[in-house]
Amino acid sequence: MPQPIITLTTDFGDDSPYVAAMKGVVLAINPEARLIDLSHQIPPQDLRHAAFFLASAVPYFPTGVIHVIVVDPGVGTERALLAVEVAGHRMLVPDNGCWTLLASEASGPPSVRRLAEPRYWRQSVSATFHGRDILAPAAAHLSLGVPFDALGPAATVWVRLETCPPDLANGCLRGEVVFVDHFGNLVSNIPADAFLALADRPVRITVGEREVPRRVRTYADAEPGRVVALIGSAQRLEIAVTQGSAAQRLQAGVGTPIVVTVCS
Amino acid sequence: MPQPIITLTTDFGDDSPYVAAMKGVVLAINPEARLIDLSHQIPPQDLRHAAFFLASAVPYFPTGVIHVIVVDPGVGTERALLAVEVAGHRMLVPDNGCWTLLASEASGPPSVRRLAEPRYWRQSVSATFHGRDILAPAAAHLSLGVPFDALGPAATVWVRLETCPPDLANGCLRGEVVFVDHFGNLVSNIPADAFLALADRPVRITVGEREVPRRVRTYADAEPGRVVALIGSAQRLEIAVTQGSAAQRLQAGVGTPIVVTVCS
Amino acid sequence: MPQPIITLTTDFGDDSPYVAAMKGVVLAINPEARLIDLSHQIPPQDLRHAAFFLASAVPYFPTGVIHVIVVDPGVGTERALLAVEVAGHRMLVPDNGCWTLLASEASGPPSVRRLAEPRYWRQSVSATFHGRDILAPAAAHLSLGVPFDALGPAATVWVRLETCPPDLANGCLRGEVVFVDHFGNLVSNIPADAFLALADRPVRITVGEREVPRRVRTYADAEPGRVVALIGSAQRLEIAVTQGSAAQRLQAGVGTPIVVTVCS
Repeated sequence: MPQPIITLTTDFGDDSPYVAAMKGVVLAINPEARLIDLSHQIPPQDLRHAAFFLASAVPYFPTGVIHVIVVDPGVGTERALLAVEVAGHRMLVPDNGCWTLLASEASGPPSVRRLAEPRYWRQSVSATFHGRDILAPAAAHLSLGVPFDALGPAATVWVRLETCPPDLANGCLRGEVVFVDHFGNLVSNIPADAFLALADRPVRITVGEREVPRRVRTYADAEPGRVVALIGSAQRLEIAVTQGSAAQRLQAGVGTPIVVTVCS
Repeated sequence: MPQPIITLTTDFGDDSPYVAAMKGVVLAINPEARLIDLSHQIPPQDLRHAAFFLASAVPYFPTGVIHVIVVDPGVGTERALLAVEVAGHRMLVPDNGCWTLLASEASGPPSVRRLAEPRYWRQSVSATFHGRDILAPAAAHLSLGVPFDALGPAATVWVRLETCPPDLANGCLRGEVVFVDHFGNLVSNIPADAFLALADRPVRITVGEREVPRRVRTYADAEPGRVVALIGSAQRLEIAVTQGSAAQRLQAGVGTPIVVTVCS
Repeated sequence: MPQPIITLTTDFGDDSPYVAAMKGVVLAINPEARLIDLSHQIPPQDLRHAAFFLASAVPYFPTGVIHVIVVDPGVGTERALLAVEVAGHRMLVPDNGCWTLLASEASGPPSVRRLAEPRYWRQSVSATFHGRDILAPAAAHLSLGVPFDALGPAATVWVRLETCPPDLANGCLRGEVVFVDHFGNLVSNIPADAFLALADRPVRITVGEREVPRRVRTYADAEPGRVVALIGSAQRLEIAVTQGSAAQRLQAGVGTPIVVTVCS
């Protein structure tokens, strides 16, 4: 049997000792656990970024992997901490909705427990760092074979992150930018199939006030510096600048409207 | 027996090949070693940041883990390289004091060796990269079972990082910011117990010239944007801005005075 | 036998989900693979940076390790994807030359295959993310024991990154900055031996228009703030500022000329 795998996703950055402390806590409980960093550069307390990140990353992992997510603006308040299983992917996560986009794209309902068994926590729990004091030790115990259901009682309500699906009316598909990647590519909430259903006809694509002049299959299909629209690797409509940053060029970011209009 | 674990903490950043070279050197000597990144974003040559980082991270690890630390402004000079054991935590580290804060908070004295056995180094040692040429291979050999004491002779003197403990006089507790985390939280050198001994009475807390208007248990106990004081996860007095950066708001950083005064 | 090791080097940054998705893909195919991050901060699409990075890091690893490199401005076009073996180091890499500097410094010719066996890819291959859809799964299959030669047919031509070797004429050695590290040190393309062959006589060293006043053995041999020349850990002439950034101080970067002139 392979060694159990625990991944870490946080907004702690790479210069603070918080991630390192969590790794220490996991290994002190289960020295065999294999730790994998997903990201520690989720923008501070940005739940939408975290939601898109998880939905775009977790499904590629094999089931059984334990994912610890610490983006937790409500730490220390009455917000719950959850153990969630979605399509075999296990997550330990604050109850702030950052996992519900992933769940909404999965087949089958999630299984959700509210962490309530202090025997799986650090003995002393701070008011400001539940990632170290509750989530990391719970993950380590889970990796040792503690049953998922032993972590706490079933939860039936939880926070859902509101997402704004794209809207189709009168041959006009209105969506928005939901993620800006490291290259400045603008990922929209418009699924490939919704776009392609329109785009066998000539369409006009706008980002904010700016029109996207060209549609391509991949970034390098246009000359450097051209603004292009394409279906990205997340199977969504994406706006890019070949060898450049669409976010900078178009002064666009999360929430900027993207509209696809059938030319009449 | 679990595979030996070697952690890496450096100020090398993530775009340079230096960390990767160290990982290669370790694995070439012990392919079974498990490498764990603690941080490569210690600010360049910032020994105080490194000291706080280590004191806040290393104690959470199980004993037996080998920690390699490369923040080394004196590389290539006559400064020694050390193997240090503090409460079972093993560190390979330049003799610049970045580990002595950790040691001062541990029970029991450290065991210290001066690295002096070239058979555990790379054959060719550069003048500018002892992390790759001495510390990484020494860690790899240690992980293979080379005895700690074989790395070199016992050292009895080493550089200590001067720390400035908080001062209590006339009901006034004077400390300073010793760490600014990724969120802009200001961590002070005032221990929770020293603060709490005063703070059962009404107290006034100032950061530089600015007064902190409110004391809370956790960040989210105040509205977004409020400046608050709280006991942080390192069990020290900490100044924060709910969902914001106290460092930016208060124009404060490492060394900014923090004063707690009992109101009379 | 130790578990197979797969390293990852990309320009994806640490806030995007792309690296995490690649890790998931590898582990879904081979849960025993040990993943090691080399860097995800290669500047976007900067092949020269990637080339220097790989040449400075990969040779330190034991042979047999599989290195996946995703700096891929041509993703989705007709550019090939390659499996390369150089002196026992295995790389999966787009055919853009980022590995040829490493190969040019190795003894013996590379063995190169063009990835052409979709059975070792993800079932659905996007036009914009071959790191996830082709390179990561190919690496995972390789780590499971698939023979190198099974990945595709031998390649006999590939893209080579042009490098500009330093030029020696009339006692004047003309090179340039090829890498700027995290500390702002300027690494040149002038090898130690070429420099040392001249530098037993008095020499004048310039970076752009600025003269370097002092030559040292290691950074700390000069007072803080001094501009110095030294032989760096890559065995090349390097320009540094003690406890400072030569890149900032000298307003220099990749491509800035470095000239060594024998004083007459």
